[in-house]
Amino acid sequence: MDTVTSQAGQVRELIDRHLARLLDEQVGRLDFLDGPDVDLVREFLVAFVLEGGKRLRPAFVYWGYRAAGGGRPEEVLPAACAMELVHAAALLLDDVMDEAGTRRGRPAAHVALAGLHRRSGRRGDAGRFGESAATLLALLALSWADAVLLETGPRLEAALDVLTRLRVEAIGGQYLDLARTPGTRAGDEEARLISLYKSGKYTVERPLHLGHAVAGGCPRTLRLLSAYALPLGEAFQIRDDISGVFGDPAKTGKPAGADLLQGKATYLLAAARRRTGSPILDDVTDQRGVAAARALIVDCGALDAAERRIAALAGEAVAALDRPPGIPPEARQALVELATLCAAGAPE
Amino acid sequence: MDTVTSQAGQVRELIDRHLARLLDEQVGRLDFLDGPDVDLVREFLVAFVLEGGKRLRPAFVYWGYRAAGGGRPEEVLPAACAMELVHAAALLLDDVMDEAGTRRGRPAAHVALAGLHRRSGRRGDAGRFGESAATLLALLALSWADAVLLETGPRLEAALDVLTRLRVEAIGGQYLDLARTPGTRAGDEEARLISLYKSGKYTVERPLHLGHAVAGGCPRTLRLLSAYALPLGEAFQIRDDISGVFGDPAKTGKPAGADLLQGKATYLLAAARRRTGSPILDDVTDQRGVAAARALIVDCGALDAAERRIAALAGEAVAALDRPPGIPPEARQALVELATLCAAGAPE
Repeated sequence: MDTVTSQAGQVRELIDRHLARLLDEQVGRLDFLDGPDVDLVREFLVAFVLEGGKRLRPAFVYWGYRAAGGGRPEEVLPAACAMELVHAAALLLDDVMDEAGTRRGRPAAHVALAGLHRRSGRRGDAGRFGESAATLLALLALSWADAVLLETGPRLEAALDVLTRLRVEAIGGQYLDLARTPGTRAGDEEARLISLYKSGKYTVERPLHLGHAVAGGCPRTLRLLSAYALPLGEAFQIRDDISGVFGDPAKTGKPAGADLLQGKATYLLAAARRRTGSPILDDVTDQRGVAAARALIVDCGALDAAERRIAALAGEAVAALDRPPGIPPEARQALVELATLCAAGAPE
Repeated sequence: MDTVTSQAGQVRELIDRHLARLLDEQVGRLDFLDGPDVDLVREFLVAFVLEGGKRLRPAFVYWGYRAAGGGRPEEVLPAACAMELVHAAALLLDDVMDEAGTRRGRPAAHVALAGLHRRSGRRGDAGRFGESAATLLALLALSWADAVLLETGPRLEAALDVLTRLRVEAIGGQYLDLARTPGTRAGDEEARLISLYKSGKYTVERPLHLGHAVAGGCPRTLRLLSAYALPLGEAFQIRDDISGVFGDPAKTGKPAGADLLQGKATYLLAAARRRTGSPILDDVTDQRGVAAARALIVDCGALDAAERRIAALAGEAVAALDRPPGIPPEARQALVELATLCAAGAPE
């Protein structure tokens, strides 16, 4: 275990160092902007990327590469960093779309940018400025992801193909989420689909595929990685659902019972609805409602069922690693570790 | 002249046909969405791209390729189509950020999508839904641009590099525009910078560079193309400024005097401010104000000066085409034609 932990730590350090260097290079290309405008990019995009996040998706990119037989870490680091930049963009945009007030325990970027505008005494709607500026920062992060991916070398085409599919699927998942929320009472199957495209494929499978593409891996390894990724992605999403209902605001950076207040279409809430048919779950507007809904979700057994489902899915994921053609032991161990992490809960 | 016109028509047809095919392929990959969700993508993104626009930027991509010695049109069509998709994304996002009600004489996408939400009787804020859905469609267009560019083949890396720079510059220009508007009374130099990055480089220079990259052109041709593009881009922007003040709403798809009402930082308004110092230009809130400001801009000679500047810039652009190393006569003729089109005004 110590070896793996220290290995995971080393990978994270590799990624962080590379990310810092790449961001510095990209900021250097903004020389057509004034100093204060560049400072804003540093504060709200560069610092946002570097100072937060668990680098879960870049870790999957890295280990997908290693699993597929890749042996030169520096070859996969651009793709791992591109993945993290795509994720930063997704978070910035999600917060605008969800009208989220906080992220990682701080004011969300669009909120902080609106505050800046308000304090500057400029004319115009501060809220609109904040949302537009946060959206532009997200677009910048997406452009930087492409710029960074250019360092991939001969496997650029395969890598860009995967990253593009990942983005299209995440956009589709986000749309499903948007169209079904609030209060459309998604059934199990629909909740599962949203979870699959918004998080499952996005968080685990496609990042692994991206690393696999950079390594030029074989189709059988690709299938092995999917067999690991899809159940694990689902486990990750159910953990996220639980955190959306029972999570500690200090850790999630969101209000207590956020998913209940927003009427989100999650697996957990769909299961609780199926078990109880109670309207208590569908009209949560305050913390009293949150408490009542939480009690109901526990009492009906939906929480226990969700925990059991997570454990079963994580087990399924780990078992898949021993399928043919097999993967190098180091990669296997790291992916087992990451499965535990996902099942135990990795906020955002 | 007839040859050129018919050649321009042929190029447009080539691009349109290729674009339709590529969009069809990309829509086909959305099979994880339900039918009505895919229909929405068809209606608000595919139809938006195919049914509007002059294909000005893809034409520059095409002729940049030909100018650089490229001889196989099918090789540059993916890049030309990617450019058009980036532009579609820019328009969708600009309309959300500017809170524009109309585009190409129809309701802007975010407005139409909000209406759809309202009519469906779903819960939640219809305006927010419209903006989020339009933003997701823009993100989809950007992802498709990358997907389409993948067909470029061996020059993918060079092409993606240019397309990424183009996107970063356009984002920077949009941010400058956002941060300086409204009522910050931009000076000549600032207005010129916004125009350079938001439109000049974006509309003319980078599309030409993109074509040049696909052809694997030489550095001297690249410089020739820039010497043509930069003055022409500025002329294009000043024409756009004039249209933003004097344009016919039926043609521009925007309210009469839109730039005045929004207090935009344009070259034309900066010139008029410099000549008059009149507060009439800075507090336009209704059509009476628009009429007064228009009269002032004409009387002080700013409009005439802007027209003279456009003519001089377009002349400078065309003269640059005869610099060494020169370009093929067909490309030269097409670029002269495009210069006339830009100087005469090409809405959006």
